[in-house]
Amino acid sequence: MTTRLLLLGAGRSASSLLQYLLRHAPTEKWFLTVADVSPAHLAPVLAAHSEYARAVPFSTDDEALLEEMVEQADIVISMLPAPLHPLVARACVRHGRHLATASYVSPEIRALHDDATAAGVTLLMECGLDPGLDHMSAMRAIEHIRARGGVITSFKSYCGGLLAPAAEENNPWKYKFTWNPRNVVLAGQSTAKYLENGHLRFIPYQQLFARTERLAVPGYGEFEGYANRDSLSYRAPYGLAHIPTILRGTLRRPGYCAAWHALVRLGLTDDSVNLDNPETMTWAELVAAYLPVPPLPGLDLPTRLATYLGLEPESEEMGRLNWLGLFSNRPVGHARATPAQLLERLLSEKWQLQPHDHDLIVMQHLFEFELGGTTHRLTSSLAVVGDDATHTGMAKTVGLPLGMAVRRLARGEMGQRGVLIPVGADLYEPILNELAVEYGIRFTEEER
Amino acid sequence: MTTRLLLLGAGRSASSLLQYLLRHAPTEKWFLTVADVSPAHLAPVLAAHSEYARAVPFSTDDEALLEEMVEQADIVISMLPAPLHPLVARACVRHGRHLATASYVSPEIRALHDDATAAGVTLLMECGLDPGLDHMSAMRAIEHIRARGGVITSFKSYCGGLLAPAAEENNPWKYKFTWNPRNVVLAGQSTAKYLENGHLRFIPYQQLFARTERLAVPGYGEFEGYANRDSLSYRAPYGLAHIPTILRGTLRRPGYCAAWHALVRLGLTDDSVNLDNPETMTWAELVAAYLPVPPLPGLDLPTRLATYLGLEPESEEMGRLNWLGLFSNRPVGHARATPAQLLERLLSEKWQLQPHDHDLIVMQHLFEFELGGTTHRLTSSLAVVGDDATHTGMAKTVGLPLGMAVRRLARGEMGQRGVLIPVGADLYEPILNELAVEYGIRFTEEER
Repeated sequence: MTTRLLLLGAGRSASSLLQYLLRHAPTEKWFLTVADVSPAHLAPVLAAHSEYARAVPFSTDDEALLEEMVEQADIVISMLPAPLHPLVARACVRHGRHLATASYVSPEIRALHDDATAAGVTLLMECGLDPGLDHMSAMRAIEHIRARGGVITSFKSYCGGLLAPAAEENNPWKYKFTWNPRNVVLAGQSTAKYLENGHLRFIPYQQLFARTERLAVPGYGEFEGYANRDSLSYRAPYGLAHIPTILRGTLRRPGYCAAWHALVRLGLTDDSVNLDNPETMTWAELVAAYLPVPPLPGLDLPTRLATYLGLEPESEEMGRLNWLGLFSNRPVGHARATPAQLLERLLSEKWQLQPHDHDLIVMQHLFEFELGGTTHRLTSSLAVVGDDATHTGMAKTVGLPLGMAVRRLARGEMGQRGVLIPVGADLYEPILNELAVEYGIRFTEEER
Repeated sequence: MTTRLLLLGAGRSASSLLQYLLRHAPTEKWFLTVADVSPAHLAPVLAAHSEYARAVPFSTDDEALLEEMVEQADIVISMLPAPLHPLVARACVRHGRHLATASYVSPEIRALHDDATAAGVTLLMECGLDPGLDHMSAMRAIEHIRARGGVITSFKSYCGGLLAPAAEENNPWKYKFTWNPRNVVLAGQSTAKYLENGHLRFIPYQQLFARTERLAVPGYGEFEGYANRDSLSYRAPYGLAHIPTILRGTLRRPGYCAAWHALVRLGLTDDSVNLDNPETMTWAELVAAYLPVPPLPGLDLPTRLATYLGLEPESEEMGRLNWLGLFSNRPVGHARATPAQLLERLLSEKWQLQPHDHDLIVMQHLFEFELGGTTHRLTSSLAVVGDDATHTGMAKTVGLPLGMAVRRLARGEMGQRGVLIPVGADLYEPILNELAVEYGIRFTEEER
């Protein structure tokens, strides 16, 4: 019997997911409907697969069509923006269809748990990279440690979407956008909270990018990590209620955070104020508008900024700011904008991924545990380089775990109903094995 | 013929307004209905005025009663929280009743302008202290300068709700709450924008309390002012579209801002994160949770904080923080709160106005204008000390201008309809004169 799959949203980040679904459709007896706002780009991809795949145009405001498509599917896979997922999930519960996404469980999704369970529906969330592969790989390591009798005292986990070395060249930030630029600009705009040696720890936004931790991934060099907003919420799903130290963070190449810290301190990441600026205001004028009126006339802008921020004029941080064009006479190009909007506009050009660039996904878990009277340290690391501009590391690590989870669902190998995330071995073991064997996406472990 | 006045909300801040309305009700032929959520406290006040005043219980969620009361009034005066004013204003427009408030014109109120005009209704907003008396006094000064042929090149205007000297004793902040504590804790949490010598100027929140200006009010000593969020929006209503320098700010006693800046930098004014803290966490533990782990063990908390913030351990700033009890073993007393909520809780006790305390309202406008080839400087200052704990400076300066505006409206001396603020001489001249002659609330001017 054919299983009907409905994929909602097939933009660039869904490329590897789509490839995976098409690869397995004939043998798994799937019929795949791909619903996308502009399905024209899918024609060449689907041409060779017309027996078991078709594309349909779908605008997310067409709720009637959504309802109809969900009703006609067995499993719905959504790559739509996360705010649309409650709408999709409610339709799935109404029609008794399973749902799989790579988005966080929101309070609205969580509220559907009982209804979904009663309807015999699985709402499988957080099944991409981060969230997704982070849960799977962390839980496998945690279970291995527990099986040996170890007691985990510290868990730190970092992830970042970065660049393969060649794409980092001629870019002192060693960073380009491989994900939503707005999210990168607004990252961390709240107090970060985590646990250290049993004590709650807080880092306000203004200090976040100044308090980083260095780490190394074998074969890929050095990185620095800054703390994510809420590390505490991971204790319950991971079964680590009493762990003394837990921290989750985001990875960048060394130096990025100190320079970003300068942008934060200057005020350029604020998204709460309309600056009433003209479109013709230059970047140099914008930066100057943030500086106190100089006591000594005649100092140039970079020198004034360096003095204001307590940086050396020739420092790497100042070099990165200059590379962005902050001291240039180029217009900001957008009237009556927030500083964050102007910065995003500038960065979208400076940090644009080029067709020949390869991205790099890095994830590292660092555990400390007590076993046999001694403290053990286990590091589990993953690095995934993108194949090309279509099958990026991001597309692969988000899409493949999601596709593999759908395969388990379609085979009836997942009995749990209601709202789930992939923290159970029945789901993560086959997925982690398939990622390693079929795609070479494997974590390397070091223990000492 | 009797004019029916409806006063919505008669809490403590309405004391002077109510006294003013009762004083003039017999001679002006008003009948006053005071609608309040708990009108019991009004009985002794209204007892001697029962011929022309009554109190009725009114809960703001009783929209039917609101509708009925508005219909039965000629003029509605609202001291309700500002978010309720669109509801009240729409009822006024429906029934053809005038409205007077001390709250800002919100976008929702502004949208009622055409309907109000068509209905022959005046929605008089911003008629208290700030906004209110600031508009009136600034516009009078601006018109005087213009009448002399002066061209205004700079306008800075500051206001603050502070303490009379005796109430400042034994309090290094020289500040207590005379207004909404939450607003004080969250003050300035956005980028401030103003104009200086024709250039846009921005101050991010993290620098706001470090970039203050000193000023003096004759007879009342020194103050420091920090910039308000949006000074640019005052250009249009004041007819100062092309002014090179305009700044509005808030006044504190010298030293307050530097110490508040330390709280901001530490992260204690953030209202965007739930700290997941237990109720029993102590203030010392909370502060320690924000500090990096010390490189040297054994340093005490105040020394660690001073080092972190770059302050001298014996500095005035550290003295103010210590006076608040930030290094004490006292519990924060509120589980799972934001830092701002915890700080407000602490300050509400430390900065509580005592029954014998007198408050002090200070306002100062600083003008520069070109006249006869030279630059003139005009300073216009106001200081109002509260009579007692009921008729505070705040209650007087908010309530009296509002009451006087209502008196003009009731007499038919205001012909303008639609949404208005008191920037016209027909309104501000009689009010400023009455404030000076009847209450001694007068601005003193100095020109050089």
